[in-house]
Amino acid sequence: MRMDFLTLFPEMFPGVLQSSMLKQAEEKQAVSYHVHNIRDFSENKHRKTDDYPYGGGAGMVLTPQPVFDAAAFAEKQVDTPNPRIVLLCPQGKPFTQEAAEELAGEEQLIFICGHYEGYDERIRDYLVTDEFSIGDFVLTGGELGSMVIADSVTRLLPGVLGNRESAEKDSFSNGLLEHPHYTRPADFRGWKVPDVLLSGHHENIAAWRQEQSFKRTRQRRPDLLKQRSN
Amino acid sequence: MRMDFLTLFPEMFPGVLQSSMLKQAEEKQAVSYHVHNIRDFSENKHRKTDDYPYGGGAGMVLTPQPVFDAAAFAEKQVDTPNPRIVLLCPQGKPFTQEAAEELAGEEQLIFICGHYEGYDERIRDYLVTDEFSIGDFVLTGGELGSMVIADSVTRLLPGVLGNRESAEKDSFSNGLLEHPHYTRPADFRGWKVPDVLLSGHHENIAAWRQEQSFKRTRQRRPDLLKQRSN
Repeated sequence: MRMDFLTLFPEMFPGVLQSSMLKQAEEKQAVSYHVHNIRDFSENKHRKTDDYPYGGGAGMVLTPQPVFDAAAFAEKQVDTPNPRIVLLCPQGKPFTQEAAEELAGEEQLIFICGHYEGYDERIRDYLVTDEFSIGDFVLTGGELGSMVIADSVTRLLPGVLGNRESAEKDSFSNGLLEHPHYTRPADFRGWKVPDVLLSGHHENIAAWRQEQSFKRTRQRRPDLLKQRSN
Repeated sequence: MRMDFLTLFPEMFPGVLQSSMLKQAEEKQAVSYHVHNIRDFSENKHRKTDDYPYGGGAGMVLTPQPVFDAAAFAEKQVDTPNPRIVLLCPQGKPFTQEAAEELAGEEQLIFICGHYEGYDERIRDYLVTDEFSIGDFVLTGGELGSMVIADSVTRLLPGVLGNRESAEKDSFSNGLLEHPHYTRPADFRGWKVPDVLLSGHHENIAAWRQEQSFKRTRQRRPDLLKQRSN
């Protein structure tokens, strides 16, 4: 898979894309990341990328030309271009694990990250294929949201995760929150690991974990239990 | 406000913390960011920070000692320490704009970012004050989540945003999605800006925008309208 990030703040990306699992995924050639400065595509002589809103009002609006051209450039880098063009915005569909699984089947994802400003509506209407919001909170730009989606999608690509983490993924997809984990020391500042985990009795351990998992889900996210029973 | 990030991947942070609004907020001394490598606090001679889970199972578990000690170090940097210690995890409370507003009133936030592994439950039980999840999707670590929270909180700190963006914030807090924005050119590739926005008739423009805002919210996020009427 190829991922292209269109942004006015390209310096935000390398620290994240070149660390940990994302870095390893690129080394394994499961994915390649490409960050583009929208400003480089502006036909304006001052490389301007925004302008005042028609009809008045506070704030600037990202102008269509450099965004359409940056997306077209990214699209041309793939032999059989048919990218999903993802806009990060508060008006988007809430991003979920299901969406990550669906995006993981694509050949190319192009992310459009606005910053401060609004987007000219024609970007939404005639360029973008998907609009996502990562949550009901206000962020300064779409950059962090695009990295969140990139992380959640990359880890689902074939060959990226070993068995260890795949197991963890499965545990999430059963629709329950995870049970508590404990490691050494058995006594840390007087706070002890539950006896059952030290018992070596595998059936009891499995039963305890399942019970804890249900209990925690009931306490914290009863909505997940409801979804599960549907 | 002071924010401390405890992580095994400190290199993920500077690109984000030293760009755009977060950088400006630090320059204005509204906030200071401090990134700590949990590994530096390990008493283990190999600087190990994780260990096998009691009771068996796949995956490693973040051990309590280095995390407690890193948090204590961060806490000591503030004169009257009373930090919120935030754990990023899928089991946490869904993070929302309300939570951002509440956290923005604190003097210090300490973020604990796990990575791959689970956390020893004693970190949850005896150290952490808040557990947050930024959404129902699986990420490789808590780093991106902590940066998302840092962004949403920082922009609410006094003096960080100008009037322009404050207005935008208010528009979100009315519980509706934003209306469409348009900027020049009035005709882009044959796609035109709606006539009303070019009319100069302020009342009609305001009415059109409100109608669009309702329409979009009804189509995309009817749940927001329900919450609003409660």
